[in-house]
Amino acid sequence: MAQRPGEQGPSEEYEGHEAYEAFEAAELLTSARLCVDPELRRAIDSLPGAMRRVALYHFGWQHADGSPASGHAGKAIRPALVLAAVRALGGDQAMAVRAAAAVELTHNFTLLHDDVIDRDTTRRHRPTAWTVFGEPDAVLAGDALQALAQRLLAEDPHPGAPAAAARLASCVVELCAGQHADCALERRGPDEVTLDECLAMAEAKTGALLGCACALGALYAGAGRGEVEALDGFGREAGLAFQLIDDVIGIWGDPGRTGKPARADLAARKKSLPVVAALASGTPAAAELAELYGRLSAGPEQDADLARMAHAVEAAGGRDWALLHAADRMSRALNQLSRAVPLPEEAGGLLVLAEFVTRRTH
Amino acid sequence: MAQRPGEQGPSEEYEGHEAYEAFEAAELLTSARLCVDPELRRAIDSLPGAMRRVALYHFGWQHADGSPASGHAGKAIRPALVLAAVRALGGDQAMAVRAAAAVELTHNFTLLHDDVIDRDTTRRHRPTAWTVFGEPDAVLAGDALQALAQRLLAEDPHPGAPAAAARLASCVVELCAGQHADCALERRGPDEVTLDECLAMAEAKTGALLGCACALGALYAGAGRGEVEALDGFGREAGLAFQLIDDVIGIWGDPGRTGKPARADLAARKKSLPVVAALASGTPAAAELAELYGRLSAGPEQDADLARMAHAVEAAGGRDWALLHAADRMSRALNQLSRAVPLPEEAGGLLVLAEFVTRRTH
Repeated sequence: MAQRPGEQGPSEEYEGHEAYEAFEAAELLTSARLCVDPELRRAIDSLPGAMRRVALYHFGWQHADGSPASGHAGKAIRPALVLAAVRALGGDQAMAVRAAAAVELTHNFTLLHDDVIDRDTTRRHRPTAWTVFGEPDAVLAGDALQALAQRLLAEDPHPGAPAAAARLASCVVELCAGQHADCALERRGPDEVTLDECLAMAEAKTGALLGCACALGALYAGAGRGEVEALDGFGREAGLAFQLIDDVIGIWGDPGRTGKPARADLAARKKSLPVVAALASGTPAAAELAELYGRLSAGPEQDADLARMAHAVEAAGGRDWALLHAADRMSRALNQLSRAVPLPEEAGGLLVLAEFVTRRTH
Repeated sequence: MAQRPGEQGPSEEYEGHEAYEAFEAAELLTSARLCVDPELRRAIDSLPGAMRRVALYHFGWQHADGSPASGHAGKAIRPALVLAAVRALGGDQAMAVRAAAAVELTHNFTLLHDDVIDRDTTRRHRPTAWTVFGEPDAVLAGDALQALAQRLLAEDPHPGAPAAAARLASCVVELCAGQHADCALERRGPDEVTLDECLAMAEAKTGALLGCACALGALYAGAGRGEVEALDGFGREAGLAFQLIDDVIGIWGDPGRTGKPARADLAARKKSLPVVAALASGTPAAAELAELYGRLSAGPEQDADLARMAHAVEAAGGRDWALLHAADRMSRALNQLSRAVPLPEEAGGLLVLAEFVTRRTH
């Protein structure tokens, strides 16, 4: 299943010239988390008992037994994008905290349901909610979080709120379509999947909500239609760049730094973007990769096969394509951003966050 | 699982003095269906392919293979309540069609998810969506319908729309809590369930959305807070009366008219309200009923046991209690209604619909 930004865990390190940028990004994320958490907590505390328990666990604020946990509620990339977009367009971010919380609730509703659908058992280093509370309660808690998100916007007297609510609701439909496409692609053979289908799926599943977060910020800054669409485009393209980088890390990332087993995406036979690009290359390495992807191996043989797969993806040009395409998406993102925010110094936070999600090496 | 109004199938007959009332109710329901269907179709047609297919099937507008079906999309009780409430409070029902559609979308989103959760295989005389399209697509289609409902309200320029959206979102949280409670009660032994718990569950699962439908109508008529709350109370109490009557039909209904096997709720060992009332009565019949409910029987023995159960519920006062309590709820409903609409002739449609859902004998 496609990885979404901010879900890879809390421990990340940066080095060299990226250190300062990473520091700035960490500050933005921490400040967004501090801004938005009280609103999120208030919303979740309003839920009836059973839904509240599941939500508090999912957000990392409670253990399974209901005792308090210090928790990792994810990196708050989406709320940070909402708030940075408001600032970039000259708005008051204090007025957009509910919108930021609504986006974060929506993101977490989709995570709860996706984990049920994908049968994923681990999220943010803990057992997923459905494995702890059962599928019914995880589905119902997700439903309740979607409703809470919409309630926050419906109760918000800000003039941008109705348009934001409509946009967020449309985005949910796109997220559902993305998750459906992800499941459908996973069921097909690796040679029955086109790169365009995979890119469209990643845009719907990952790009749409990053774009929506930025667009909501623009709406809350009172921006015009053109600026709102430009910021949506910025978030979408940056989201695609993120996904491409994430897929590269899923194959070549250092397990000592990612916290995941080496070549985990290959072991799971994931149809990630570099793999599909490699398979579509028509090279001899593509044929080898297709053969390896169809093979079931275990133990030392499996390790050797995984190494050969990674080599084949690289030899078929999958890695280079992904990195180039990520750079292309980032340049499209910056182009969209400049349409709405011509002065780079005003785009500040948005640039820092976009760099953060796409410059990661693990 | 608790039956919800309007889900018992399309074929109903009335006789004697009820015939005219039933005719009036049928007219109201048909006219609500005609009003709201184009809005529903437009909303559902805007969905991406996979979600659209599931939704069109669920609403009875397509067969599983995608060919058109004449369909039974349920009785449209909730949209009819929205529109009748608008009229009762002097509003223009033509302005409230989106709100009526939003309520119907919300109802159907919960049906899609409840069927997955309850593993129910039949709905409106057809296989449930999850049995045809799989659980993931049924969950995602439900998520998309919730989003569509909120989008309709967010895009509605009517001044009542934001309050309606907030109210509908809160109602979704209550519906989720009701479904959770229903599952939790079903897992417990019949002697571990109190009548108050069952009534609270029925109010959350059935009453809340009927109340919300009426309250949305009041909001769209520009009514004040007191009238909105009174109409919510009216719908809730009528919803409880409905559930009680439905539970009576589930035990003593004539299978030739209900289309269900005789005493189906007893065969499923459902903790319906008359059963729980009987078990709580402290009578010898209660003890006999508890013993029978714990027994697993089949064939002719099962038929004899079901007849003894029905007799025990009646002997323990469960049937009388349910009918009296339904009458009490209806009188509370009418009392709430009179607070907002003092003249019975103005309450017209609301009274007819309330009579319709509670005067059924099958």
